[in-house]
Amino acid sequence: MAKTEPKGVKSGFVRHLTPRDVDFAQWYTDVVTLTDLCDYAPVRGCMVVKPYGTAIWERIKEEMDSRFKATGHENVMMPMLIPENLLLKEAEHVEGFAPEVAWVTQGGKEVLQEKLAIRPTSEVLFSVMYAKWLQSWRDLPLLYNQWCSVMRWEKTTRPFLRTAEFWWQEGHTLHETAEEAQEETMRMLDIYRQVCEDVLAMPVYSGHKSDSEKFAGAVATYSIEAMMQDGKSLQAGTTHNFGDNFTKAYEISFLARDGKLTHPFGTSWGTSTRLIGALIMAHGDERGLKLPPQIAPYQVVVVPVAQHKEGVVEGAKAVADALVKAGIRVKFDSRDTVSPGFKFNDWELKGVPVRLEIGPRDLAANQAVCVRRDTYEKTTVSLDGIADAMKALLAAIQSDMYDTAKGFMDAHTETVTSFDRLKEVVQGGFAKAMWCGEAGCEDAIKAESGAGTRNMPFDQTPFDDHCVHCGKPAKHVMYFAKAY
Amino acid sequence: MAKTEPKGVKSGFVRHLTPRDVDFAQWYTDVVTLTDLCDYAPVRGCMVVKPYGTAIWERIKEEMDSRFKATGHENVMMPMLIPENLLLKEAEHVEGFAPEVAWVTQGGKEVLQEKLAIRPTSEVLFSVMYAKWLQSWRDLPLLYNQWCSVMRWEKTTRPFLRTAEFWWQEGHTLHETAEEAQEETMRMLDIYRQVCEDVLAMPVYSGHKSDSEKFAGAVATYSIEAMMQDGKSLQAGTTHNFGDNFTKAYEISFLARDGKLTHPFGTSWGTSTRLIGALIMAHGDERGLKLPPQIAPYQVVVVPVAQHKEGVVEGAKAVADALVKAGIRVKFDSRDTVSPGFKFNDWELKGVPVRLEIGPRDLAANQAVCVRRDTYEKTTVSLDGIADAMKALLAAIQSDMYDTAKGFMDAHTETVTSFDRLKEVVQGGFAKAMWCGEAGCEDAIKAESGAGTRNMPFDQTPFDDHCVHCGKPAKHVMYFAKAY
Repeated sequence: MAKTEPKGVKSGFVRHLTPRDVDFAQWYTDVVTLTDLCDYAPVRGCMVVKPYGTAIWERIKEEMDSRFKATGHENVMMPMLIPENLLLKEAEHVEGFAPEVAWVTQGGKEVLQEKLAIRPTSEVLFSVMYAKWLQSWRDLPLLYNQWCSVMRWEKTTRPFLRTAEFWWQEGHTLHETAEEAQEETMRMLDIYRQVCEDVLAMPVYSGHKSDSEKFAGAVATYSIEAMMQDGKSLQAGTTHNFGDNFTKAYEISFLARDGKLTHPFGTSWGTSTRLIGALIMAHGDERGLKLPPQIAPYQVVVVPVAQHKEGVVEGAKAVADALVKAGIRVKFDSRDTVSPGFKFNDWELKGVPVRLEIGPRDLAANQAVCVRRDTYEKTTVSLDGIADAMKALLAAIQSDMYDTAKGFMDAHTETVTSFDRLKEVVQGGFAKAMWCGEAGCEDAIKAESGAGTRNMPFDQTPFDDHCVHCGKPAKHVMYFAKAY
Repeated sequence: MAKTEPKGVKSGFVRHLTPRDVDFAQWYTDVVTLTDLCDYAPVRGCMVVKPYGTAIWERIKEEMDSRFKATGHENVMMPMLIPENLLLKEAEHVEGFAPEVAWVTQGGKEVLQEKLAIRPTSEVLFSVMYAKWLQSWRDLPLLYNQWCSVMRWEKTTRPFLRTAEFWWQEGHTLHETAEEAQEETMRMLDIYRQVCEDVLAMPVYSGHKSDSEKFAGAVATYSIEAMMQDGKSLQAGTTHNFGDNFTKAYEISFLARDGKLTHPFGTSWGTSTRLIGALIMAHGDERGLKLPPQIAPYQVVVVPVAQHKEGVVEGAKAVADALVKAGIRVKFDSRDTVSPGFKFNDWELKGVPVRLEIGPRDLAANQAVCVRRDTYEKTTVSLDGIADAMKALLAAIQSDMYDTAKGFMDAHTETVTSFDRLKEVVQGGFAKAMWCGEAGCEDAIKAESGAGTRNMPFDQTPFDDHCVHCGKPAKHVMYFAKAY
């Protein structure tokens, strides 16, 4: 059982990746573009998601969507445009989104009497339709979601992390009681956590956002925060409890059990193509992307070696077919225009969890050479029962990748009681600290350390009486970190 | 084996549907809105697709997408905005789409220096990206598709049939040779035909569009035309061979096998949420929607009868569970706020192919009452092996619905050799006639009969020497019909 250490990227095989420790941001950009995940579009701040990136997004959608449906949610499709007068009804919401709205002012040759916003999010349209649809308590809860793209006119953009247009899902629900709305808010946060941890092999901190970081129009916002390999936080999903803010502003009411016209309670929740950025930065290494088996578009790549020799392509193809038949997602790479070495590097760059190399001697010995992407561990596996062996290996890689990421997160999270230590810790990790809860103090911490409040864990057991920064009485346990 | 004839919709159970023969257009609108497929949006000409309509669209997507992938296509996600200067490069294309483009002129508070079109279709963006991505003949073919919504500023709109924003897929491909582009154009036309006929149980005529009806910028456009129950045609899908029109206009070239820089040949092809409109008008009846089992979100609805009695809900639920386990899409309707009769009508309105009614006496006799939506045929079925029985019944309904629609189409298609007869036939069907091929004559036929050219079948065996209208030498066999 030989173990091959990473040797860096060989020149001539694939293009150059900037090392992570030299320039993490450049490494990220290199991975994104060299792995064919996406490309820059000829539209300011927008990206084109290429087939490999789209395949990952489709996998994320499948995993999320099946969990939404299993918890009673249904999908709808809302228009992409919102008339200005409707957008203006919920004051905080407008203030939050108006600066970043793209406006349609012309249709064909006609100048429109009223500007139309390309949706930055769809609370407004869901609210308008809910006002029309909801009659009685018997109609509740309304549990709808949509998959679409939204537009926010951002000044500074980075592929997947922040683009003018991005793809996401947005759930919007209404409930009879405030308690049910809160339960829904927490239920969806936990589904997001499950998908991140169980599917993306990416541990997260779940918690409650500070007031200044909550969604425009929400009573409370919750998030899951993932740690990237540079120690920064990436907000991987948010859920919002709206109370009756939107249902009052948009005059949504229902005939309650007591016969009275009542405003229901609302939530919304979203995750986006940012998750692909998170995947890259949580797991990638010097050779490129490293995809957890559960999300990988191809879980195993089969590469014939010395494929000009008789029977090699056929033999390797038979192995690939057997894996496909067992439900494994397989790429069979029999290109005759590039060498096996090129292919090895190419699929490592693209993060395929397992590579099987099959040459004439392997076939003669009824075996294949098997290389794990996560550890570079190289073994030989018998072709007898190879599908079962691959399933077990993929499960092991999934679990090991989670453990590695969890180990990293634990090692880079520190409970601090002094602001000096907080400033040090957030250079490459998360600081868990007691905080006074005041927005002014939050701003000062950000200005002095570069780290913002991320979220407050549900376990609020205090470990100090004083705020880590201002020394006033501490109110909350808070995670601080720099963030994407 | 009792057979229950439709009795019309009972008042008190469901709201009123206008009879098809009284006012087909109003019947359509009634079905669309009363079945909760969609609703009118608070944005001019736009619709909201509700959960039931979205579920049908998701089924159509699954069926289309798996066939695209099986033929080597991959999905991408392109931006929704197109800068004006890029849109202007292919002259015919601009002329075709400019009058119906919605323009973004403002981003946040900034007035944009260049207007951005919301995509009416994405040939332009695919062309710009292909120019960047394509290098060598080894990269060809490029076989990409995207699922998205597009915007066309239509004056007159109807749900699913013509809306300002609609959802669709658009395939865009590039090929080394003109022959390969033509093969792709025909391959995708045939995939569209397959989905319509095999999944939607909706027979179509495949053929070649006239020059005046072809896509802006195409060399040739092909369509599948379905017949609605009022005898009008609905274009259910189109494929376009672009030759090198777009690749020249957008300067897309590749290093060919002979070492020369060469323009590749392109295609595009699309189907949209119009297909839902087609489904309604091809199959619906006086009681509402009639969904073929293959596309129905729910294939079987299980309704407990006298559900207050002990064991009824549990017994009916056990049947529903057994069907789900066998891979059947099942709705178990145990609402206690409405009567069984209300439920029967509600699910007939929504077109669920099979209804199982299960009461205490049925459970005692180990059977269920089974009603087919397509024929209203009522039988009793044993609960032993009910999953297999339901699978067989669903397959029979699928096949019978296709045969019924095919019988209707055949009965309402007539080969004509006089213009007087053409005018009569197109009042309620398709006229197959010989045509001179001239645009002026095509316009005159439309003006005098209300019927346009639909498409030219691939079997062009002539049956007359003269054009059905002008009497000049006939060039083409052409289907004429009124159309949606």
